[in-house]
Order: sequence, then structure tokens, then C-alpha cells
Amino acid sequence: MPTPLAEGDFSAVLTTAELEVIASLRCFVVEELRTARRFLSAAGLRGHIDELELHELNEHTSPAEVEALAGLFDGGRNVGLLSEAGLPAVADPGALLVDLCHRHGIRVVPMVGPSSLMLALMASGLNGQSFAFKGYLPAKTPERRRALQELERLSSRLGQSQIFIETPYRNDAMLTDILECCNPSTKLCIATNVTAADEDIRTKTVEQWKKQKPAIGKRPTVFILCA
Amino acid sequence: MPTPLAEGDFSAVLTTAELEVIASLRCFVVEELRTARRFLSAAGLRGHIDELELHELNEHTSPAEVEALAGLFDGGRNVGLLSEAGLPAVADPGALLVDLCHRHGIRVVPMVGPSSLMLALMASGLNGQSFAFKGYLPAKTPERRRALQELERLSSRLGQSQIFIETPYRNDAMLTDILECCNPSTKLCIATNVTAADEDIRTKTVEQWKKQKPAIGKRPTVFILCA
Repeated sequence: MPTPLAEGDFSAVLTTAELEVIASLRCFVVEELRTARRFLSAAGLRGHIDELELHELNEHTSPAEVEALAGLFDGGRNVGLLSEAGLPAVADPGALLVDLCHRHGIRVVPMVGPSSLMLALMASGLNGQSFAFKGYLPAKTPERRRALQELERLSSRLGQSQIFIETPYRNDAMLTDILECCNPSTKLCIATNVTAADEDIRTKTVEQWKKQKPAIGKRPTVFILCA
Repeated sequence: MPTPLAEGDFSAVLTTAELEVIASLRCFVVEELRTARRFLSAAGLRGHIDELELHELNEHTSPAEVEALAGLFDGGRNVGLLSEAGLPAVADPGALLVDLCHRHGIRVVPMVGPSSLMLALMASGLNGQSFAFKGYLPAKTPERRRALQELERLSSRLGQSQIFIETPYRNDAMLTDILECCNPSTKLCIATNVTAADEDIRTKTVEQWKKQKPAIGKRPTVFILCA
């Protein structure tokens, strides 16, 4: 089940079908308990939070703990899977639970909601017929520049849009590295705070961005590079 | 603006925000006129279809015709962009209009809706931290098998889930080729008719699929391979 990417009215980013399903469930596997309770309360379960059975699944969950989650489905119970923002299991935890379901023959039903990666891609004007998502690049400048140049080569060779993200507090360092090591003619989409009131999605060449470096700050940002 | 992937209730796959925006617009760029009129009528513009200004953008549109679409935005008018199913500009036409908007400084706002690729990926249990979409593979068996084996090698080398689609009437030939040329231990998600009443999304190894070949038929299907 997708969750919103930004503060605001749920009806702009979640379907009424998803909100109805949330209200009907009493068991959820979530990335983080505290924010999941806040979301579920606002999404229709206010007054029922103490009745809910919530289980965490994130990078700290051991393989044995994941396997134990199979018991949640006993008796054919429906269980919701949530991550902190956007789609669970896509650039976010959750895939291990989904994998477990397939291995146990438990039906998995994805619900429609916001994917920051696809919202950025569809609004970028870059190649949406061939693309790749790499997740996070290395955090240190020399390694990051090598990774960026490799993405640029791949994009040029395969005609493939390259999508990547960065921890918000490193956005500015990432942008500096992109502008200093990529070809001036390479196109770069910077998609900041997608679905928020201050959403800003623009595509320019590296050369054009250099002339007017955008102020991303620490807002969540998706980068798409197309050489 | 996304459109539904399958017949059924719009409120299950489109947000109320998108339906409100559709009702407020009078100009759309669409992949195909006839189906766009049917969708727009059902989505809230019944009774206004004759007042609408609809322009086609698809594989038959020339570069000069695309450039001429810039005039639609004169006076700051809002224009909707639709494809036949799912997200425009992602595995569907539309990116040329979005690119034109960025070049002319026209703001692009993506709306939340169903992406068959991301719905399949989030429900596959396969790696959602690194993935690539290749679009269509070659249509003939020898070339297709070579392409599948290349995807399998890439997936194994990069840990990257490989997403691809096929024209529905070739689904069965595609599946035969996957099962005959990929490694028995490679995982394959077959996501058929995503969001429809008969949605079927299952992930098994090639070896397991061989024992019970699924009847996809001519239903729209997303394949995801992870070696």
C-alpha cells in the first residue's frame, strides 16, 4: 500500500479504494512504527490505533524475523504493507515480505499510489521507453563522480534514462558533482518535493543548469540523467 | 495524467484530485482520439466532449507537428496529456510534449495514477532497489532468446531486476522462450491484467513455472526477471 510522499491532502495522492482498504485492516507490516501510526490514524483508523497489530520490517529485521511474519497470514487474514513514503518494496523496504508471500502461495495485491521515481520520469520529458534505477550512488566525491560518469556512458550507449536519488542532506554535494563531471550537453531532470505544494520538476542540459544552479536544499529529490 | 489500465471503477485507480483536474480542462493531447473521448466522457466530461480540443500525439506525429503543439499553451492555458493506459511518457508516447514544455519553460505537473511496471515490481518481491525497463524485446525467437539471456546476465552481474513487456498476442511465445532459455533458478514474476478483476501476479523460479505453465493468453502482462 503506497503512502504519501509529502504533507497534504491524501485524496490528491491516494485512491478512495486504498483508503477503504486501510480502514478495513487491523494488521500492518510497516517500515517504522511511529510514523506508520501517524499515517494510519490520519488515513481513517483514528480511534482504532490501539487495536492494530503493527510489525516493523526494515534494514534491522533479521531473516528469521522476516520468516516469522508468515504467521500473520494464518487463517487467511489480510495484512497491509507500508513504507515511510511512496511505494513499499520499490526503493524502500518490503520486498522480503512480498517474496515470502509468493513462496507461501499468499496472494499479493498492489495498490495504486505515488511513486516519486515514475512521477519524476513522466514529468521529465526524458526517455521513458528505456530507463534504469540505481538507488543511491557512493557518498564520497571521487567515487560518486566515477559512478556518475559510468551512468552517463551507460545512458549514451543504451539510450537509457538513469534515475537515482540521494539522502536529502547530500543533495547539494550531488548536484555539484553532476554539474562538474557530466557533459555540458547531457540532460538532467531535477524533481524536488514531488506532489508537495512547492514541487519543482525541471529538465535542462548540464550547461544550462550550471548558469543557474537550483536551490534544492534538503528537500527529497529525484535526479534523472540522459546523455 | 494517468488513465486506467483495465475496465472498472475509476476510483480504484485514479485519485479524486486527478478526476477534478480532468473535469476542469478543455484541451488535451492524447494518444488516440476515439479511446480518449470514451475515457474523458466516463471521467467527468460527459456532455462536454464536443467542446473539447483534442490533439493526437503518437508514433505517427512528425517533429514539426510536435513543435506546433507549443501554441496550445498560449495565454497560460492548462493542457492535459493522456496515453491509452497508465502513465503517459513512460512506456507510452508523450515525452516529446513534456520535453517541449521544459524547453519553453512551461510547468509540468505529473498526477498520481497506475503504472503497470511499478505495480508489478512492488508486488513481485524482486529487487526494487535496482531495476531496469527495456520496453519490448525482439519479436523473433532467436533474437529474443539472445536478448533474454543478455538480460539474465545483466541481472546477475548488476543485481538488477529486468522489467519488460510484450504485445499481448505474443505473450505465449515470449513465455515459451523465457522458460526454454533462462536458468532454472532465475526468478520470474508474471504480472497479468494488473488492477483488473482477474489480476494475477506471481513470482516463481523458471523451474517452478515450467512445471505449471500459466495461461496468460492475450491479457496485458509485465514480465520481471531476476537472476
